[in-house]
Amino acid sequence: MRTYLDHNATTPLRPEARTVMLAAMDEVGNPSSVHAEGRAAKAVIEKARGQVAALVGCTRGQVIFTSSATEAAALAVAQKARHGGRFAALPTEHDCLRVWTDLDLPSLFDRNGCFDKAGFAALTDAPALLAVSAANSETGVMLPGGSVAAPVTPEQTIICDITQIAGKVPIRFAETNPAYAILSAHKLGGPKGVGAFINFTSEDPEPILRGGGQEMNRRSGTENVIGIAGFGAAAEAAAGDVAAGRWEEIAELRNILENSLEAHEKKTIFVGKDSLRLPNTSCIIADGWKGETQVMQMDLAGFAISAGSACSSGKVKASTVLRAMGFGESEASCAIRVSLGLETTRDDVLRFADAWLAKRDRHEQRAA
Amino acid sequence: MRTYLDHNATTPLRPEARTVMLAAMDEVGNPSSVHAEGRAAKAVIEKARGQVAALVGCTRGQVIFTSSATEAAALAVAQKARHGGRFAALPTEHDCLRVWTDLDLPSLFDRNGCFDKAGFAALTDAPALLAVSAANSETGVMLPGGSVAAPVTPEQTIICDITQIAGKVPIRFAETNPAYAILSAHKLGGPKGVGAFINFTSEDPEPILRGGGQEMNRRSGTENVIGIAGFGAAAEAAAGDVAAGRWEEIAELRNILENSLEAHEKKTIFVGKDSLRLPNTSCIIADGWKGETQVMQMDLAGFAISAGSACSSGKVKASTVLRAMGFGESEASCAIRVSLGLETTRDDVLRFADAWLAKRDRHEQRAA
Repeated sequence: MRTYLDHNATTPLRPEARTVMLAAMDEVGNPSSVHAEGRAAKAVIEKARGQVAALVGCTRGQVIFTSSATEAAALAVAQKARHGGRFAALPTEHDCLRVWTDLDLPSLFDRNGCFDKAGFAALTDAPALLAVSAANSETGVMLPGGSVAAPVTPEQTIICDITQIAGKVPIRFAETNPAYAILSAHKLGGPKGVGAFINFTSEDPEPILRGGGQEMNRRSGTENVIGIAGFGAAAEAAAGDVAAGRWEEIAELRNILENSLEAHEKKTIFVGKDSLRLPNTSCIIADGWKGETQVMQMDLAGFAISAGSACSSGKVKASTVLRAMGFGESEASCAIRVSLGLETTRDDVLRFADAWLAKRDRHEQRAA
Repeated sequence: MRTYLDHNATTPLRPEARTVMLAAMDEVGNPSSVHAEGRAAKAVIEKARGQVAALVGCTRGQVIFTSSATEAAALAVAQKARHGGRFAALPTEHDCLRVWTDLDLPSLFDRNGCFDKAGFAALTDAPALLAVSAANSETGVMLPGGSVAAPVTPEQTIICDITQIAGKVPIRFAETNPAYAILSAHKLGGPKGVGAFINFTSEDPEPILRGGGQEMNRRSGTENVIGIAGFGAAAEAAAGDVAAGRWEEIAELRNILENSLEAHEKKTIFVGKDSLRLPNTSCIIADGWKGETQVMQMDLAGFAISAGSACSSGKVKASTVLRAMGFGESEASCAIRVSLGLETTRDDVLRFADAWLAKRDRHEQRAA
């Protein structure tokens, strides 16, 4: 029996997504074709666009489908010429944004996950286009109030990475007022390989993929009809679950997990425990026990978890995010992320806690 | 009853692709994750990589999965700095390549689809990086011998667009010796939204999508596991059909179609009829009868065909490809593309011919 506790890396496909994806497999046409088959395929995409717009809280015309949040990030960054010519990501951002940064910003999160509002407001060397994620994928730490509450100067334009909050907590852009947002289907029960770029500006973005003129000339390439259908259905289902408060139950399970571990292992650090966090995420530092080792040992015990973000999990190095938050090299390399999903049960987390504590004891004995 | 004759726009999903896509829907993991679920998802991708490599005739390591041939084209063009800094596409290339061209080249195909080898060899103003498609999507006209037979100067590097030949005719790169090739899953029975960039050079391409480092750092973004699985299975099935000579039967049907139309309508032009063409494609010019009108009238009669490439079919304008081949504005705006698939029957093409001729007669009567 396997227990999957790595939902921030990717989620199982929701049944609603599977159903529409199966139906979309029967759509023969190219969405750009004007004949009946083409129009039917187009309709699948446009339905999904409405569903994603409803989840995000934007208009349908603001949704541009991409192949991933990574592509959406590249598209957002490609707009920097319109926004002062410079781009920067906070050091705690995902690699798909951080990789494009033109200058190094100071970290704005401390080891407790507290956001430095004053520091943010005082970013004198701030770039014109700035990436800020609504929630961190590794720690689950969210911006205060779920948004950038600090005043954003008129010279700053925000790219908001909502990949981790979309489908877990309500999306409120009120205070952030981003120009662009990026998200991904597979973090909320949709298929991997589909994302969206949300354009809140009145101007069409300069495209990075060009040719056939799909997505109203904003992103060329024949559309991933099956995947987009799944994204739409997953977004609608996810929005329903958020509205129904289902993640509050998951937050309780996460707290049960952390309390179980803490009760037996006082030294364990739960990153951002007292900050606003995603309901499903626990970033656990067990100093002296390498994150990769924990992942492998728990894998053998039947549990899927991760050390750092999935993308970089192949690379054995200390978490950049935790280092930016002020953790030392040793602590940052001994972190795991346990991320729960809607199908996670109380039994799952209790079994995980037991297994983890048993492995932890054995590790301590060996180390002693 | 509908008859789909627009296979160069996109193809129905092959049953082999559907089967593996359904199975891939049950893969919970992120291919970048090191746990069992992640490794299983990774295995799906690596199996598909081998299948696509076998179809193309390259090594697995040369295959980089993308979201489309359009993305693969953008990635190929992004390498121009390594190849002299300039890129050009022939005027008959697909928009996804032509859109990036740095200079206008003369057309190398005449109205009969004959390739001007001498003109190609004499491209004194030739760019260092040059896009040449193995077969044109609108006319089906192929390069002589299925490759660029003209000597490519050492200063020229070729991007070969094999999107339309892949899965229809054997791929032979011997004479072309391209640096890069691009193709797409949905033209050969795979799903829309997946493509591949083939890197024949010894150097990794400079990526355009960056972040998590997927595809060995050559194309970041969580992989479209379900779509890639479908691409692989479709590629394998398509390679089998090519080897079995199944397209020869389709070429016969295409010839039956053209002969049926020609017998009743002498003025009709079949573009490139005497040149090497894809086995399934017929580009038909019925002067005085707009291509868009034909598409709409045949759609109402139950047949899906297109005027020009699907991508640009929304735009009412004369085919750029036909204009580049030397057809006048009037002829180029009166062209349709009928493209058959492996499931097309003799009955399909005969019914199409009957319906088209009846509409043609009515059009002539109205025009008179």
